[in-house]
Formats: sequence, structure tokens, C-alpha cells
Amino acid sequence: MSKDVEKKEVKSIPAKDADLSEWYTQVCLRAQLVDYAPVRGCIVLRPYGHAIWELIRDEFDKRFKATGHQNAYFPLLIPESLLVREAEHVEGFAPEVAWVTEGGGEKLTERLAIRPTSEAIIGVMYARWVQSHRDLPILINQWVNVMRWEKSTRPFLRTLEFLWQEGHTAHSTEIEAAEEVQRMLEVYREVAEDVLRLPVIKGRKSEHEKFAGASATYAIEALMPDGKALQAGTSHELGQHFAKAYDIKFTDVDEQIKFAWTTSWGVSWRILGGLIMAHGDDRGLVLPPAVAPYQVVIVPILRKGDETVMAAARDLHKSLSGVVRVHLDDRVEQTAPWKFNEWEMRGVPLRLEIGPRDVAAGQVTIARRDTQEKIAVPLAELTSRIPELLDAVQRTIYERAVEYRDTHTVNADTREAFVEALKSQRGFVQAAWCERTDCELDIKAETSAVSRVISGSAADGATCAFCGRPAKVTAYFARSY
Amino acid sequence: MSKDVEKKEVKSIPAKDADLSEWYTQVCLRAQLVDYAPVRGCIVLRPYGHAIWELIRDEFDKRFKATGHQNAYFPLLIPESLLVREAEHVEGFAPEVAWVTEGGGEKLTERLAIRPTSEAIIGVMYARWVQSHRDLPILINQWVNVMRWEKSTRPFLRTLEFLWQEGHTAHSTEIEAAEEVQRMLEVYREVAEDVLRLPVIKGRKSEHEKFAGASATYAIEALMPDGKALQAGTSHELGQHFAKAYDIKFTDVDEQIKFAWTTSWGVSWRILGGLIMAHGDDRGLVLPPAVAPYQVVIVPILRKGDETVMAAARDLHKSLSGVVRVHLDDRVEQTAPWKFNEWEMRGVPLRLEIGPRDVAAGQVTIARRDTQEKIAVPLAELTSRIPELLDAVQRTIYERAVEYRDTHTVNADTREAFVEALKSQRGFVQAAWCERTDCELDIKAETSAVSRVISGSAADGATCAFCGRPAKVTAYFARSY
Repeated sequence: MSKDVEKKEVKSIPAKDADLSEWYTQVCLRAQLVDYAPVRGCIVLRPYGHAIWELIRDEFDKRFKATGHQNAYFPLLIPESLLVREAEHVEGFAPEVAWVTEGGGEKLTERLAIRPTSEAIIGVMYARWVQSHRDLPILINQWVNVMRWEKSTRPFLRTLEFLWQEGHTAHSTEIEAAEEVQRMLEVYREVAEDVLRLPVIKGRKSEHEKFAGASATYAIEALMPDGKALQAGTSHELGQHFAKAYDIKFTDVDEQIKFAWTTSWGVSWRILGGLIMAHGDDRGLVLPPAVAPYQVVIVPILRKGDETVMAAARDLHKSLSGVVRVHLDDRVEQTAPWKFNEWEMRGVPLRLEIGPRDVAAGQVTIARRDTQEKIAVPLAELTSRIPELLDAVQRTIYERAVEYRDTHTVNADTREAFVEALKSQRGFVQAAWCERTDCELDIKAETSAVSRVISGSAADGATCAFCGRPAKVTAYFARSY
Repeated sequence: MSKDVEKKEVKSIPAKDADLSEWYTQVCLRAQLVDYAPVRGCIVLRPYGHAIWELIRDEFDKRFKATGHQNAYFPLLIPESLLVREAEHVEGFAPEVAWVTEGGGEKLTERLAIRPTSEAIIGVMYARWVQSHRDLPILINQWVNVMRWEKSTRPFLRTLEFLWQEGHTAHSTEIEAAEEVQRMLEVYREVAEDVLRLPVIKGRKSEHEKFAGASATYAIEALMPDGKALQAGTSHELGQHFAKAYDIKFTDVDEQIKFAWTTSWGVSWRILGGLIMAHGDDRGLVLPPAVAPYQVVIVPILRKGDETVMAAARDLHKSLSGVVRVHLDDRVEQTAPWKFNEWEMRGVPLRLEIGPRDVAAGQVTIARRDTQEKIAVPLAELTSRIPELLDAVQRTIYERAVEYRDTHTVNADTREAFVEALKSQRGFVQAAWCERTDCELDIKAETSAVSRVISGSAADGATCAFCGRPAKVTAYFARSY
């Protein structure tokens, strides 16, 4: 979309409350995060969207490295004969696979899957690399594209091809593998909450919702403004399932040959979709400063024939460049109010306005994206006030999100309250639960909701809020993306 | 491969001079850069190889950003109907394409190509984004996987799937596009020579060797130890070919509607293969410090029951951690000499040996990977000496490579000298040339060599060294990878 077209459209998005789905799509497009690609269900991640993704990626990546993981790269294509070795895994993924059947002008003798996830091909390699207990643990991550042939798609939330990271580890004991799964789940929680400012609930997935081939799946779930839950990261105990399917075994200290215990964990660009939906408002995107490509945009308010404002704006840009990620919007073909709208749409945390009166008074006017508040700040205080204000934005965004989550989470003790809450309430319903798949399917049929995570054990003597049988756990239920 | 197996094999690679091809493969495997994948023609980039690739990527990426480019991500799959729009382009790439024909359990109505390069899909998007001259230039790069269905493959140098970056830009004038092509070619030269220490020759490709669909292709070419040239980066003037095929047009300042001028430029992990081959020796890999994951490895020489050496090694590790990329090899199951061999195989620029006598004397012994020189350095001087030594290694590696290149480049004036040089000489042959494709094909038939780059105009009155017709240019010829 050219700038001329955007100019007319910049203000015409629907209110977020009125039509969240359309609001979301329009913000993704008009903030220039993505565009639709000329191939079904795929998006182009545009430079501004990619810059946010790079910042998110770096936040995760440094924590992966700090916890002892290394990056690697495994092939895109997985021969069908490898993919089918773990029965539950292939059953879960086969319906969503894209197959390469021709290459170099010839029909292939075996179909090759574009990876929907890489347990299979990585399992084969780990089997080759592991012989002794001294070769363990293996702690590897990869940042790659994967493909799942989905029917309906939405930018970031569900696309045929998506960018993600997938960690794959192998350990000599079940306990060590379980610790790894929790360690990475906690890394996910930390980045989601501390960096992206998405409050999440952590817990274990039910049998019905767990990863195909896993012993146990753990997840972080964030609440979206329509009360639906968004699974924002998963961490799987794979038991010895994949080690047995791909023959990852080792000689232990006791000289016995044993199968390894493996894990996998992944976060995709879906979490960026969650961030957009959770924090945005009727004016567009609201970015947490930690992942804003521009934390500050300087918009000079120009008067024809007066060069002092642009000169002051350039000085400002120079003096802030080492302090924050700052952009000077020095375009002359657009008016200042138009630029205000555009940078609000694109979610820049702080806007610095500088006009002739500001120059004369030795100050700038700072507009906060999150609260729309305007503050006059003397130039001399700027390099100290801006980091303070960015901290305040980063804090305020989280406080709002936590308040929303807390006011949209209810407990339900009876079947009536449980069903009523899931049908009418936008948000999480916490309840004692029997943990049976049959019960979960009944809940889904009646309310469209499923369990999102199991957060702990049930109280002694508690009964399932839905079916009345003895409760095993406490779980959060919600409709979901 | 487990450590136990490697232990036996670490010394058994062939001499580099005796069998370069086998030496290369063995170094790639035993330095743990790559492993063969269970899918034909593909490799796994292991953590150590990936760490080198990340350093190389960051060196390029910061220069791309400094020259005004932004990263983005375009889809992996390109519908056949889009790929075929630029006739020369599809003719060049179609034979190497891998096709997706099934997805989500159904046969697709149109074949989807796994990108062999992304001009087609990016062209479609640029057509949508560009309307006015104010929308230009577009300066975008992406770091992605691509696929070309090659018959024979070798790690890094030629693989079905490979990692690379591809820059794609659109401009309002031919001159601006031509400047962009040269700017990026110079970025490639700079990283190749200053960082990776690969001396290259820069120039234009002949008609026969240029990119499918380009007006002109420019390249950097490095000389390998067997005298073959390795194309290490290319930068293409695409003229208005792709703009016309994909309808990238804009209203210029003069209100006329014009087609844009586009460029593309790419470097792949092939340049890492060039680095391995150019600098390695009979002991294995030799890494330039600038892209060495560990610039320094500390190997304590342990004596049973004596804890002082390990303690001193840990102190050393701590004190160097902020200064250089340093690794402490504190494994107790391997001997010091075994570790020396392993870290030489893996190309670490400096090895710090510390034993009981070193501890007593308040010094360490530093072994340079490039020269095998050993130097005793007092502990107090370490933090200043190590950066100096790393600089010296970085310099020495380049001096050797330049000397090799210069002593393996000859001029040829006559057909006899030209043919003789190409047949017997390992290296570049520089000659006056007519620039005709027929002549190039004849040269190839007789000598197996082709022109690598055209470096300038021919002298007045010069004749083609091969066919005797009037010479147009001066070119470098060589056999190539």
C-alpha cells in the first residue's frame, strides 16, 4: 500500500470493542507489520514487523544461551519414512503436512514433508551423536520457518508458514528432562510477562490438548480482549517416546544401555499477534518499549521558511541516539497531525513534538502512546526523563493487562455456574475438574471451551464442576484461538 | 559422532595437499561444523558451525543496516504462475526447483515452488507497495533458507537447501540502482577480505555466467588451494526486467508513470566453505579470530591431586571473559594433548596452556593456531597481549591468503600461453578477451575453465588471448566450484 493510499485510510479502523477481529487485521496491515502474500494463508513480515520480531527473538535467544543452549540448523525437508516412526506424532501432524513430490524435474520416489516441527529429523541426528552418558545432555535450539496446512488463517495467529524457535534436548534421566521442561517454560513466562507485558497462566495441558507424541505438555496462556485464551508457548516432556522411535540410546555410568529422555519447546510469531491484540487500542498498535523498533519518534512542527525547528529536531535526534531507539520523522510532504496519527497507529511509545514555541521555551512536548498524556519537558531534563517515561509505559501496559486478566477470571463450583460462566463470561473460568477426556469433550460440546491449563491438584473431596465425579485437578477453562 | 569415536579419529585426516576434497569433508565433519542429514544433499549445521555462521551473519547484517537496509520475511512457497512471469529467470531456475504438490491431505490445483531465490514473490509485493516516487527506494534484505535441486553436493559449497541472505531493492533511476549494486558488492568485498580474510577479485560476470534474468551480474571471487575459483557473493542489476514482469511502476516527479529499476544481491553459507578451504591446514580448521566462536581456549594441564591448576584456569577464564570469546576446557576424562588436537581441529586461534610450572612461574603458555608458535606470557600482561595476538593471527591469515592468490595469478598474452596456463596453472589467468559467449564456450571445452569476472576494459588494440579477435575487456579465467 503506498503512502498516499494510507494517508486516507489511517484513521478508518473500527473500534477495538466493536469488532476485534477486523480491528486486529486492520492494525496488522496499517501499522505495516504484515501484508497478505500471493500464496494462500501466508503473510509477508514487513520491515517494521520484522524489527519487532528481531527484538523478541533476541530476548528469547539470550535467555536460551544463558541457560546453556546452542543454536543449530536442521533440514527443512523430512522424508515420510522418518516422520511416521513415532505413531502418535505422525497421526497428529500428517493431516497438516505440505509434501514435496517433485524435484529437479523428476518425480521423487519418496514424499518429503516440509517440517511441521522437527522432532523426527532431529531424533535421527541425536541417535547418531549420542553414545555415552558423557554426550548428554544435548541442548539445542533452532530459529526456523515451519509449515502447517491450516484451513483458515489470520496474520501471526494462524498461518500456513510461520517463524518460530524449537528447542530440542536429550537427557540421561527423566528428572533432568522434567527440570529442563520447567526451566524453559519459566523462560517463556519471563519474556511474555517482563518483556512483552502479557500476563500468562502457566500449567500442564490435558490429555486432549497435549502435543502429539508427548508424555506431558506445559504451556503459557494469555487472555485476549475477547476473553479467548491464546496459547503463547509450549514445553513438552517427550518421555522416551522419540528416543525409542529414533533410537537415541546411550551407555550410562552403570554400563547399562538406556534410552534418552527428550524434550522440545517452542514459541512462534503467534506471541507477536498476542501482543498486538492485548495492548492495542482504537488508535492502533501499542508497543511495550522493550520491543518497540522506535521507542521515541521526533515529529517537528514545521513553519514555512523557519529552519530553526528542523535544526532543533536534528540536534534532539543526535543527542538521543545513544540513549534510546529514536527516529526523526523529517518528511516534509506530510503534516504533523498526519504523522501523529501514523506513529500512534504504529505504536511508538513516546512522541516528541517540537514546534517554534517549544524551541523558544527550550522544551519539547512528550506524548505518551499508552495514556495519551502530554507533558512539557525542558531540554536539559530530556535524557533522564525519557528513560523514566519509557519505564512508566512499560509498567502501565502491564498493569492494565494484569487488571484485565484478573477481572476476567472467575471461579465456578457448580455445573450451572461453570456452564453459565463459560457461555457468558469473557475470560478464564477456574474450576475443580476430573481430568477425563470424555468430560472435556462434553464441556467443549456444551460451551465451545476447553481446558487451557491444569494449574494444580484439586482440594481434598472436591468434585468436578462439570460432571460431579471426584475432581483430580484445578484447571483453567476458556474458549481459545 | 560421539566423543569416544572422535577420539580415535581426530588425527586421521588426509594431508590438505594430498587430497583437498577428502581433507575438506573430514574437517567439516570432525570440527563438528556439519553432519550429513538423512535427506539427500542436505546438511545439518551443528552448533559450532552455526556459531560461526551467526558471527558471519552479524558482520553482514550490521553493514546492511548501516547502508539503510531493513530485514523482512517473504513466504517460502512461490506459486508456479508467479515464478514463470520473467522468462529468462524461470528458464534458469525451473530445472532446479522442488515442488510442493500436496497439502492438507489434498492435491493442490497449482504447484508451489520452494523458493530457489525470491525475486518473483518479492516483485509481486513491491508492485503493491510502490505507487509514487516517494515510495522509492525500497531497501529490503531477508535471511532465509532456499532450495535448489542439485545433482551432486558438498557441505556448504553446494547443498540442496542452504542458508543465505538475499537483498532486493527497487529504485526510481537506473543510476541509483547501479550504485546500489556496487555499494553491496563493496560490502561483500569488505566482509570477505577484512573479516573472513578471503582476498577476492571484484568484477562483472560474462553473459554466459550472469544471473538468470539480470542485466548485469557482479561478483566477488576467491581462490581456493586447488586453484579453483569460488564465487562468494553476487550483486545483480536487474534492469527493468522484473519491474515489467511483476508490474512495479510509479508516478515520477514529472507525473510520468515509469517502471522501477531493481537489484538483488546474495551471500550464502558457501562463503563459510571458502573460509574453511582457504585457511585450514593439515591439523584442521584455522579460523580468523573475527568469526571464531571461541577466540581463546584454556586447557589446564592437570596433575592428580593438585587443585591449583584448575583453580588458576578458572581464574583465567573469569578474567578473560569480558575481553574475548573464551572457553575453558575443564573436562577431566580427556588428556591435555588430546584436547590440543581437538581444538586445533576446530580452529581456535589461541590456546592457553596452564600447568603446574606455569602456575608457579605466574605465566601461561600461548599457542598460536596459525603459526603453531608457542609464547610464554606473564599473567599480568595477558589482557593486553591476547588482543594483540588475535590481531596478529587475523593479519597473518590474510597475508598468507594474499600471497597465495598473488603467486597463483598469471597473465597470458597468447593463445598458447593462455591454454597452457589454464591447463597447468592452479589459479587465475588474466587475459585480454573478446567477451563473446562462443569464445567462452570454446575456452571451456578446451580448458574446463570459464571467465570468472571481467575486471576492466582491454588496452587499445589488444586482441583476445584465445580467439585473436579484437579484445573488449580484461578478464580473469579459472576453473571453478
